[in-house]
Amino acid sequence: MLLGYNIVKVTLYLIYNMPSKKVSGADNQQERLRFIGWIVGFVDGEGCFTVSFFKHPKSRLRLKWQVFPEFVITQGMKTRSAVEKVKKHFGCGEIYLNRRHDNHHEHPIKYVVRNREDLLTKVIPFFEKYPLLSAKKKDLRIFAKIVRMMNRGDHLKKSGLEKIRLMVREMNNRKFR
Amino acid sequence: MLLGYNIVKVTLYLIYNMPSKKVSGADNQQERLRFIGWIVGFVDGEGCFTVSFFKHPKSRLRLKWQVFPEFVITQGMKTRSAVEKVKKHFGCGEIYLNRRHDNHHEHPIKYVVRNREDLLTKVIPFFEKYPLLSAKKKDLRIFAKIVRMMNRGDHLKKSGLEKIRLMVREMNNRKFR
Repeated sequence: MLLGYNIVKVTLYLIYNMPSKKVSGADNQQERLRFIGWIVGFVDGEGCFTVSFFKHPKSRLRLKWQVFPEFVITQGMKTRSAVEKVKKHFGCGEIYLNRRHDNHHEHPIKYVVRNREDLLTKVIPFFEKYPLLSAKKKDLRIFAKIVRMMNRGDHLKKSGLEKIRLMVREMNNRKFR
Repeated sequence: MLLGYNIVKVTLYLIYNMPSKKVSGADNQQERLRFIGWIVGFVDGEGCFTVSFFKHPKSRLRLKWQVFPEFVITQGMKTRSAVEKVKKHFGCGEIYLNRRHDNHHEHPIKYVVRNREDLLTKVIPFFEKYPLLSAKKKDLRIFAKIVRMMNRGDHLKKSGLEKIRLMVREMNNRKFR
């Protein structure tokens, strides 16, 4: 029994003395969690879920309207590195330089995800797992619904398109539309 | 030896089955870390460290200039709850409704920390511990230096005031000044 007790003691000793290695793992994990939170906060600040409509009179599709969902983050030029971190995290999308010739100090850059598959498998699930804290949370919910409807082809039918149009009206953020 | 082995197994079993309680603690900790990251990301998006100068010709001080550092977050009306979370976290500052009559959809609200003690003990140490990822990181560094100089009274001397003025010129974010 004493032997067993000692082994338990040794086991516990070993477990308690593992942390030297574990700490750096925990540090990484803490950093990862803070980075996830950072993305959510940054998107609450500068992100945008939008759905636009474009008319294509010459389209071969029955309905001439294209529904165009986008996830966009805009930032001043000097913050490109922060936006690049977001792009790296999601592993999709593009960064565009948006040259403006008005009275703004900086040329804003834009991070944009338009690919439906990327929206469905990368962007939307991320924000469903780690919810936004601002009013954009509601936008994300409607946006996700629309992209999923589109994935079923609903936007190619008149009733579906109309439904999407009404849903878009409920979205808050019209800034970039 | 077999007994010892079993005890080790039982010990390990017990250790591995403790998490039921631990998990909720870990969950809280994870949430806390994500929330810290969220604040940093939100401030990278919508936050601002500014230092303004006001002339008070009738001031009894030798120099008639007041140096006015502020930490500000602006957000649309609908996101008040998110800004309130930030205020609660820092345990200081005020939320103001900033009524605008231009073509903006929403009346932006402002979270502002002006109290020097709060800046020195709450806001600055937070962002020094959890660095911003955008260009605002540089602003915070200069801002912190200025507030600490003010705490030593440097801004009341001509040379210190001039030094502060030059430092402010190096800050990126002039949006709210």
